Amino acid sequence: MVEKRKPIPVSEAVAAVMHYALSGSPETVALEESYGRYLGEDLIADHDVPHFDRSRYDGYAVRSQDLTTASPEHPVTLEVIEEIGAGFIASKEIKPFQTVRIMTGAQMPDQCDAAIMFELTEEYEKSGRKFIDIDRPIKSGSDLFHKGEDMKNGALLFPKGTYINPGICAVLATFGYASVKVMKKPRIGIFATGTELLDVDEPLVPGKIRNSNASMLQAQLRRAGAEPLYLGKLIDDFDVSYKAVSSALEDLDLLITSGGVSVGDFDYLPAIYKKLGAEVLFNKVAMRPGSVTTVAELNGKLLYGLSGNPSSCYVGFELLVRPVIKSLLASKDPHLKKIRAKFQGNFPANSFSRFIRSHLAYGNDGLEVVPVGADKPNMVSTLASSDALSVLPGGSNGFSKGDVIDVLLLESNEGSKWPW
Amino acid sequence: MVEKRKPIPVSEAVAAVMHYALSGSPETVALEESYGRYLGEDLIADHDVPHFDRSRYDGYAVRSQDLTTASPEHPVTLEVIEEIGAGFIASKEIKPFQTVRIMTGAQMPDQCDAAIMFELTEEYEKSGRKFIDIDRPIKSGSDLFHKGEDMKNGALLFPKGTYINPGICAVLATFGYASVKVMKKPRIGIFATGTELLDVDEPLVPGKIRNSNASMLQAQLRRAGAEPLYLGKLIDDFDVSYKAVSSALEDLDLLITSGGVSVGDFDYLPAIYKKLGAEVLFNKVAMRPGSVTTVAELNGKLLYGLSGNPSSCYVGFELLVRPVIKSLLASKDPHLKKIRAKFQGNFPANSFSRFIRSHLAYGNDGLEVVPVGADKPNMVSTLASSDALSVLPGGSNGFSKGDVIDVLLLESNEGSKWPW
Repeated sequence: MVEKRKPIPVSEAVAAVMHYALSGSPETVALEESYGRYLGEDLIADHDVPHFDRSRYDGYAVRSQDLTTASPEHPVTLEVIEEIGAGFIASKEIKPFQTVRIMTGAQMPDQCDAAIMFELTEEYEKSGRKFIDIDRPIKSGSDLFHKGEDMKNGALLFPKGTYINPGICAVLATFGYASVKVMKKPRIGIFATGTELLDVDEPLVPGKIRNSNASMLQAQLRRAGAEPLYLGKLIDDFDVSYKAVSSALEDLDLLITSGGVSVGDFDYLPAIYKKLGAEVLFNKVAMRPGSVTTVAELNGKLLYGLSGNPSSCYVGFELLVRPVIKSLLASKDPHLKKIRAKFQGNFPANSFSRFIRSHLAYGNDGLEVVPVGADKPNMVSTLASSDALSVLPGGSNGFSKGDVIDVLLLESNEGSKWPW
Repeated sequence: MVEKRKPIPVSEAVAAVMHYALSGSPETVALEESYGRYLGEDLIADHDVPHFDRSRYDGYAVRSQDLTTASPEHPVTLEVIEEIGAGFIASKEIKPFQTVRIMTGAQMPDQCDAAIMFELTEEYEKSGRKFIDIDRPIKSGSDLFHKGEDMKNGALLFPKGTYINPGICAVLATFGYASVKVMKKPRIGIFATGTELLDVDEPLVPGKIRNSNASMLQAQLRRAGAEPLYLGKLIDDFDVSYKAVSSALEDLDLLITSGGVSVGDFDYLPAIYKKLGAEVLFNKVAMRPGSVTTVAELNGKLLYGLSGNPSSCYVGFELLVRPVIKSLLASKDPHLKKIRAKFQGNFPANSFSRFIRSHLAYGNDGLEVVPVGADKPNMVSTLASSDALSVLPGGSNGFSKGDVIDVLLLESNEGSKWPW
């Protein structure tokens, strides 16, 4: 009647799913579409940046050896023989005691080795020729951006799997990537189960609630870098549901169902896994919320049966689905970013590990992690206010205000290696 | 020849642009498209959540007053008169010493005030009727999710301008928002200027570099929640450029140009502002990088002239453009999230405020902020590795390793009020 399940530790559950975490494949997108994606190949510099010495200011390009004796009493006079705008190059050789006007970022003439700002000198005309007087020595290399000082030809700049932030977009542009190899977004299907579920646009009726997990999971998938495909509700008919799950799998990297995995009479997802020939990796995890999480594997593809309770579903996703998605995105740190912070709650001992919805506060005395409202698995409102999970390992003596604990960040693009 | 400019403090520059920071307008999108957007109206609960008492587990719904005398020696027998699946409601009145099987999440019958898990009892049949024995008293309210315990009818849950995370998506679904009012993405135009700029897909030639700022700014705009429109390069012709800027403005919330604002001979953006009739709010800010940032205002619209140097452009954007965009998105905390951390660099005194590209490290002794590589304004590579800016206010005696300083977070969806 009531199936007895053996809970496995969270770490074993994570290890079990990571065993099937494959690396995904790349695709090519336009540079403008690459922000927020993940590099699909190592980014290697194919030239020095800058690829020539550049003037740092609007001013004059000089030969420092002309100026060694310059002083306010005995300024050195240089003839201004031409002008180089940014993007142009010198047309003449610069001989001793000659100079050129040069704009910020313009390429230094070969014979010059330093620049001096407009503000430090003043141009004048004499007999139809232009001159400046310089009243100080200038060190070789002054006020230049040097060839290769930003990035060196051949350097591995950012490895495959790096999150593409605005700075990476600038680097990609610098190296001429009008199109960019990025990791394909993993395609993840979602089924909801539960006869109590109304669609979002249906009016409320007694006994029923609206399906919030499907919308939440779609957003969690987007946050993790995946492409969600909501496949609708599985109806309370084994054969129909079996066929729906079976055919959906073909086109997906992995499949999530929410609900249908507890020990209730109408929970037939385990039977579907069985008929598919999928191996159930585990059907209970020693954690709260999310203990009834079930994961099965079929031909290397993972089938997740997440709890129908919103926070159990949410936490099960972040701990067990996210790292698999990040692996498909070639991340070397696929798990939630882990930090340490002072716990601001009080929780009794528990044999199961607890993941408390929390808010990270940057206090004056360091990081504090504050539980958000009531910690019941059905709560939706607290999920909306959470940006972190407080980790309270099972089997401890309980946790009190001020204890320094592990905290998992929900909104960070960074990640952690295992174990946290 | 060389224009003298009076630098204004960063705080005055921020105040000047925020004077023109308007609130934007909302639009309606499908719930599935709302993740990562900002609420376009206050989110108010229009019913209790849950809207009925629900069973927390698969088990039996009971009347606690029937069980006050229950003990292992004298268990109380209850007749099981029906079964309520999740989504269904009781069809019969539950009389004293009767019970119903009830599934997780199902609506409690009116006469019952507590639930007991399957695991704590066992059903048996006698004379064709079903019974359970209960060997302990059950407190009224046990193992229920109570009506309204998650969210109360009429409560203001999340104000307009709130960032829509996966938990907010779940709340929206719960309240039946198949479509969601979100703030319109501000439309921001970008012009690049600079004769030295090659397009991203052009081969390198002496004296020229590829345009990286346009790609960087597009990504920064997306990160801030705006819709970027890259309008191409302004060519070195005043009339053509004037017309391009003038006509672009009509369709945009604000306009950014990068380059063309320093004191170089070819920098004619100030002249364009003048001919447009725009009021220049400032043309130099006492900060590094980004000191040559110019902002003008025309009929309430801001025209930003950001530096052509990548990090000057980047920092100018984050300090002066981002808060205006966030205001258009109805944020109450439009400025970069400010925290405190231990500085891990050494920088000499400077009259200008410095914003050092940095990485935030969650050390065991608290937060540390580590400058990323060389801090020159032309550097692109360091931007890619930065997730924070170390704030070193001008006019100080310099900053050393271990000093606790302000840090601005670049990747946080949270923000700060002014002043940081």
